[in-house]
This record gives sequence, structure tokens and C-alpha cells, in this order.
Amino acid sequence: MTKYTVSADEMEQIALGGAFLGTGGGGDPHIGKLMAQAAIAEHGPVRVIDAEEVANDALCVPVCMMGAPTVMVEKLPRGDEAREALAQLETFLGRKADALICIEAGGLNSTIPFAVASATGLPLLDGDGMGRAFPELQMVSFTMHGIAATPMVIADEKGNSSVINAISNQWTERLARAQTVQMGGAALVALYPMDGAAMKKGLLRNTLSLVKEIGETIAAERKAHRNPADALIARLDGRRLFTGRVVDIERRTTGGFARGKATLKGIDADAGRSFALEFQNEFLIARDETGAALATTPDLICALDADGGLPITTEQLRYGLGVSVIGLPCDPQWRTQAGLDLVGPGYFGYEQGFVPIERLREAV
Amino acid sequence: MTKYTVSADEMEQIALGGAFLGTGGGGDPHIGKLMAQAAIAEHGPVRVIDAEEVANDALCVPVCMMGAPTVMVEKLPRGDEAREALAQLETFLGRKADALICIEAGGLNSTIPFAVASATGLPLLDGDGMGRAFPELQMVSFTMHGIAATPMVIADEKGNSSVINAISNQWTERLARAQTVQMGGAALVALYPMDGAAMKKGLLRNTLSLVKEIGETIAAERKAHRNPADALIARLDGRRLFTGRVVDIERRTTGGFARGKATLKGIDADAGRSFALEFQNEFLIARDETGAALATTPDLICALDADGGLPITTEQLRYGLGVSVIGLPCDPQWRTQAGLDLVGPGYFGYEQGFVPIERLREAV
Repeated sequence: MTKYTVSADEMEQIALGGAFLGTGGGGDPHIGKLMAQAAIAEHGPVRVIDAEEVANDALCVPVCMMGAPTVMVEKLPRGDEAREALAQLETFLGRKADALICIEAGGLNSTIPFAVASATGLPLLDGDGMGRAFPELQMVSFTMHGIAATPMVIADEKGNSSVINAISNQWTERLARAQTVQMGGAALVALYPMDGAAMKKGLLRNTLSLVKEIGETIAAERKAHRNPADALIARLDGRRLFTGRVVDIERRTTGGFARGKATLKGIDADAGRSFALEFQNEFLIARDETGAALATTPDLICALDADGGLPITTEQLRYGLGVSVIGLPCDPQWRTQAGLDLVGPGYFGYEQGFVPIERLREAV
Repeated sequence: MTKYTVSADEMEQIALGGAFLGTGGGGDPHIGKLMAQAAIAEHGPVRVIDAEEVANDALCVPVCMMGAPTVMVEKLPRGDEAREALAQLETFLGRKADALICIEAGGLNSTIPFAVASATGLPLLDGDGMGRAFPELQMVSFTMHGIAATPMVIADEKGNSSVINAISNQWTERLARAQTVQMGGAALVALYPMDGAAMKKGLLRNTLSLVKEIGETIAAERKAHRNPADALIARLDGRRLFTGRVVDIERRTTGGFARGKATLKGIDADAGRSFALEFQNEFLIARDETGAALATTPDLICALDADGGLPITTEQLRYGLGVSVIGLPCDPQWRTQAGLDLVGPGYFGYEQGFVPIERLREAV
């Protein structure tokens, strides 16, 4: 049944791949990695299983962090909040979970479920609900398959918790977000409890394996003193958007989002040009000097340090930093009308329509 | 067992008395009265029982509205949210409630529980948790007796709800308040589930009977073309603070409170003097022209229309309105250090210390 197991050492690659698919947001997977490594040292490796191995009546539950990842790095989790959230959800439902799910394949939430899986002994499904990171809890493939986010449990490190029941996943987001803010800006949650049959319809498959492979590629390329950009583009059917150096950065925190825009001057093959990266937690639009979109959400806009080759989050953008920016096609479900309604540029308030990355001519 | 029953007609007196003990806030009991009258017409009168009649292991549950009462008047409840909140709490606890409690004896929450009691057939205890109205959910005698506000259910008219479990009643207030705001500013809740033994320690006794008696007194005095102020002062060991006409009113809504200050010019025996009423939802401090406090929270500051004799809420204060302002001693528990920590002037941000109403010389 077990597809493979993940050791404490292998969490390094998972965290690296998760940072890349975090598309600039989703939070640094570092804290989750440390939690997972501590759990694995105590309870043993994590079993990753294939969706088809799960019975149709099994209970599958995503566990994740909600809130501002920047807060999580300072307000350290006590360590057992996610397990506590899961346990409370199990009590509410009157049954035990059979498998865990990563809600997103990028950022902090690509590592935290490993900690819970190791501590509980539950297997983790090879897949997730986004194929990347997104900022709000209704932005998952599960929503498109009619799976309810509630009953959902939200728990903080102090011992406070709630069981939410809402009429829609958007309402769940509103009620949970308000509590997350009161809980200090970050909380742990267990949500979208679903049976195996629903999971098989909604899960974006094999994305944990992809996260691991991306992490391994980045590590191997760096070891060979190559920037991982070319290898990742080849592996992931990506496009090089541009390489540039940050010359200006605007940031503002409004409506619970870290919004902003980085302006970059092209370097190397892009010398003489200029570019912009607009973000709301994640990178959402990349533009050239004419304002034309090079890539837009829900396609993935991923940034690597042009020198060291490590993934860059929006918080790390600073004057003078050189970045290689890569575009990747998102899961096809996100390009349907239902997908674009949930996570397209319009949802985030941009007038810009969605531009599939494939429409771009291959640059350099 | 039944102390007395309350008919649809008698809800008029309950609402009148509740408006008086609302001390300017707590919301107009009108909507709750209409809900109770509709329920009584369909399901029959409400049985009011004495605390001593309840078994020590019985489950007693307060039900009430939470949020801005001004919102509730525009965003009408669907009608069954409070019953739904109660039912969800019963499901969570795995047992049925045996009796209902009014969380406050003033304002909207002095009438809403009658609607739930009639619809469910449950008796309503003769008592409450405040002996008046206060703006936050931890401001109840139950908190002083170590009774937890959670598990608490909060429900809106759309069908959203949460079960909150918090580490303190102050944390319950924070988490529930944030959800109330998201739910549109008003929600219905069932909270402080307690057994009969705890209820007997915490309940402020016989306050529903007092509400009814105050309402009957106001109605009788008005019928006899007398302002009810003198009769209420005599019955309630009160003090006449002043009679004046509103000459200025400042209002601001900050931190979820309706804060403000009314300036009044004395009339009748108080001609030539001036006064101020400061409020945060409820009237919290009455001052004379020197700034000296005539009465402070937690003692009750109640206002009657100087002409018609009806209770006045802070929203009704307007230029030119004549009001008779009466001070009443609060329940002795509120004057302990624990009580003043919860609801004294300091909690509301005033430098003014608590001034027991009895220290005032009897004016006019």
C-alpha cells in the first residue's frame, strides 16, 4: 500500500520543492520541516500512499496552517495544535481519520502535514488541493467538486478552538479568517473532511512526489553549481519569464493580504528591459515594460535567486536581489471558468484577464 | 413548580421593564417581544420557575442575541436561530437542556429567551447573569463563579454556525465577537451551559420578576398620567440624578461599541445646572457641571423621557429631548473587586473610580 516513505533527511527536499511551488507565498516551509523532522525522529517515517489505495468510505482529512505565514515564524506553534484540531474534528464526526491530505503543495502547508502524519501514524496521500499555494481556504479543487470545507476545526497554541459549520466554503473562509486574526494571525486547522470516493474526484494527484522531485532537482543542480532554472523549466514544461534585479519594491498589508509590486531591471539576456511582479501573498502577475502580462494566476510564477538558485518568497524581495522568474502551467482544472472564478486575476481585483503561459513565445 | 406563566399580553410589561434595566443600551426589546408574542400565540405561555426548583444535575442554558442591537432592528432574525443554536449545543453536549436562562435582565435579551422558551416548551429561570445590560459576554455573574462560557454555539440567519471552546470567558468574547462581525453584526448564541448546582450559585435571583414589576409600574404610572420616576425610585431604592434637556450629543462607533457623550441643561428643580451622560452602548457615567461623578458603572443609570415617561436608549438621545435620569444600586456582587475588574469604570477605559450611588445625598 505504501508508495514510499519519507525520512527526516528527505524533508529537506520536500521543503525545498514546497518553497518553489509556493510561488512566492504560502510561507517558508522551514518551520513545518523542523516540526516534521522532530516528529519523524520520535515516531518514524511518513508513509505516502496513492489515492487509489484508499477505500471509498475511508475518512480523508487535510490539516494545515491558516493565517499569515510571516506570523507563524515569530509566533511558533506549540507543536500539537494541528493534531489537536484533527482530534477535535474526529470527535465531532464520531470517527477516526484514515488518511491525511496536504491542502496545498506549496509553502508551509507542504511540510506541516508530514509532522501530523508521523505523530498520528496516518498515511499521507500523494496529492493536494491546489498544485501550488493560494491564500484562501476555498481556493482548492475540492470546492470545484462540491466538497464542503466544514465541519472544520480551528485551534490556536493557547488552547482555544472552534468547530465551524458554514453554508459555503467562502463563508467558511470568512468565519475562520476572523478567528485566525483574533488568535494572533495564525492557527492550525483540520477541514474538508471527505470520504475516499470524494477524495479520488477532487485530489490533484501525485503532487507530493512532484514537490519531492523539484526539491531533489534544486539540490542536485546547486550541488553541480548550476542554477536550477533550466532543469526545472525542462522538467515542468515551464517558460523562462525573465531574469532581473530588484530596483524597487512597494508593500502594503490590506485586507489580511501582503500586497505589493516589485520592479526589476533585466540582466543577462534581458539587459535593457524592465519587468514587474505583482503579488498578493503569492506572485499573481508578471509584466514586461509595456505592461503586458507575461504570466497570470492561476498559472504559477516562481522565483529563484539568480545567484544561489534557491526559491525566493515575496518577503525576501529586496533592492539589488537578482531573480530568475519562471512560469509554469497550472492544473487544467484551474483554467476552467469555475477555476478562474475561484483563483483567476479577477478574483484578486485585477482587470487583467487570464493569459495561459503557453501563449508566450519561448524567450531566450 | 411553575412560579407563574407569562402570556403574550404580559410581554408588553416585560419589554417595558427590560428597556428600563437596559440602562440606555442592550437594544430595544421590541423585536424580541414580537418574536416572543408570535411564539406564545403558537406554542402557549412561558413558564417561569424558581432556581430552587431545578435539580442540581439539570442542564441550564442561557440563549441570547450577540452583537449590535441597532443592527438587529434592520437585519431581522429569521426567528429560529436561537433555537438552532440551542439545538446544536445540545447535540454537542449529547443531552437536552432542562431550563433556559436570560443572560441579561435588560434590553433585547430580556425578551428573546421568552420566544425560545415558548417554542421549546422549556421553563425560564427567574433570574439572569447581570441584573441589567452589559455589552460583553464575559460580564456576567457566572464568570465570577468560575462558570465557563464554552462550549458556546453561535448561529446566524443564513445557516452558518460555530461551536467555540475557549480557555477563558474573555477569549470566548474575542472569538465570538469576531464571528458576529462577519455574520453581519448580529447573531444568536447559546452559551454558559451549566448544571443546576452551578446555576444556583451564579444566578442573580428574581430579576425577571423585577423586570415585569418595573414594566407594570411604568405602565400604571403612565396610565395615571404620572411620570414613573418617583414610583421607580421608591420601589428600587434609587436616586434621582437629575432632570435635563439634551443640548449636545457626540457619538462615535469604535472597537465595536457605540460610544458617546450627551450634554444636558437642567430643567425643573435642576434649572441652571448642567450634566453629562457618557456611554459605551450602556450609560456608564453621569456627571454634574463640575465633572464630579453622580453615578458610575456598575450601578445602573436609567433614563426616562421626562414627558412621556418611557425608557430612553442612547440611540434615542437627540437635541431638545427632556430626560429624567435615575441611579440604581447594582447587585452587590458587581461591587466586589472581581466585579469591578469585569465591569467597573476602569475596564471601560475611564480614570474615574467607582462611586456607589448611596454616597450621593438625596437630591430634590
